Amino acid sequence: MNEKTLGILGGVGPLATIYFADLVIKMTEAKSDQEHIPMVILNHASIPDRTAYILDRTKPNPVPVMAADAKQLQNDGCDFIVIPCNTAHFFFDEIQKSVKVPLINILEETVAYAQKTVPNLKTIGILATEGTIASGAYQNVIQSHGLEYRIPSAEDQESLMDIIYNQVKAGEKVDICEFLRIVGELKKAGSDAVILGCTELSIIKKDFNLNKPDIVDSMECLARASILACGKNIKA
Amino acid sequence: MNEKTLGILGGVGPLATIYFADLVIKMTEAKSDQEHIPMVILNHASIPDRTAYILDRTKPNPVPVMAADAKQLQNDGCDFIVIPCNTAHFFFDEIQKSVKVPLINILEETVAYAQKTVPNLKTIGILATEGTIASGAYQNVIQSHGLEYRIPSAEDQESLMDIIYNQVKAGEKVDICEFLRIVGELKKAGSDAVILGCTELSIIKKDFNLNKPDIVDSMECLARASILACGKNIKA
Repeated sequence: MNEKTLGILGGVGPLATIYFADLVIKMTEAKSDQEHIPMVILNHASIPDRTAYILDRTKPNPVPVMAADAKQLQNDGCDFIVIPCNTAHFFFDEIQKSVKVPLINILEETVAYAQKTVPNLKTIGILATEGTIASGAYQNVIQSHGLEYRIPSAEDQESLMDIIYNQVKAGEKVDICEFLRIVGELKKAGSDAVILGCTELSIIKKDFNLNKPDIVDSMECLARASILACGKNIKA
Repeated sequence: MNEKTLGILGGVGPLATIYFADLVIKMTEAKSDQEHIPMVILNHASIPDRTAYILDRTKPNPVPVMAADAKQLQNDGCDFIVIPCNTAHFFFDEIQKSVKVPLINILEETVAYAQKTVPNLKTIGILATEGTIASGAYQNVIQSHGLEYRIPSAEDQESLMDIIYNQVKAGEKVDICEFLRIVGELKKAGSDAVILGCTELSIIKKDFNLNKPDIVDSMECLARASILACGKNIKA
């Protein structure tokens, strides 16, 4: 059997991990249970908070736990490892160094997919948590692809955090008009496409059926890359 | 850290596995990501079809793969192992023999929970796949608890299989009136409670909000038992 096994280094957070695994299964072309991608999912919820450590290095460092999980996935025979969390990609290189198995990078896959699918793409708007924006991770990847980026104004970023934390994460009603206004502002500022660089925003996309070619969902891009890496096809 | 890790022997099927993990997370009392139960989930979709083997022993035997997965979960430090699939419990004893880590039995937990929560319970109706009914697994557990059981008529069982395979699994509209008629027939036949012994039926319960004390959902019972075994509380 030359089946490829996907390792999901999860727990960051637990629900996002399950959302991602669900997405991989639903996006895989498979006629029966047996045709799906074998997966090993580690959902070690006790991984220290990533944003807390990025913003304050005196807080517990999540890297040792994540590196240990990556090693466990390698030992369990995984052929690829993915981390379904944009913020955690701040630690990507450190985690990759701890294993031989290749990690698939959500930031790289998302920007590459935008570049491949959005015609005449020059400028990308980034919607993500304050932690991800502050880390500069997306900005670096976008620039390394020869593209420009836009981020929300301080006021719009605050409003976006309210949507992520007090609406989606809290299971409350989402102010979709406000969300689409923020997307609109990024477009007005010159963005040819907008990246949803945060699981909670992927959930908004799903719930409100925001299927537009210029809205690029990072979780879907990581799922797509995982499926193709494992030698399966994307469901039409 | 005396955190208990839950091992989920999944893949039977892949989506049911993810549905179960989601249920555990949503049913756990936790104020932050870090308070959730650590999990290792094996979603080896290539496990041979269980029902096929139960009904025809010349088909591939799923036990060796499932026993190997149980061993892997044991090596990965899991304190408990669960199999989120009623049909696969036909092989429960064989799989338990392959590891020292205790397996939690969905059939036992479901019947015990019904006995604990439904007043004056004497007779339980079973709604499950033809494979599960044919294996006699629920019937044996119910009788070992000193209770009686009822199963649907051949005609109603056929209609139930249509709901499971051609409606829920196929993502089609569920004929909820027909489903509730079959539940009603089991009640008329003397059932004090009805067990939903199949993931697809748990999904109907969720989608139609069938929160009645005499409808006992096996997936919820397994999730509840897993959370308590791992030393966490059930969310109010």
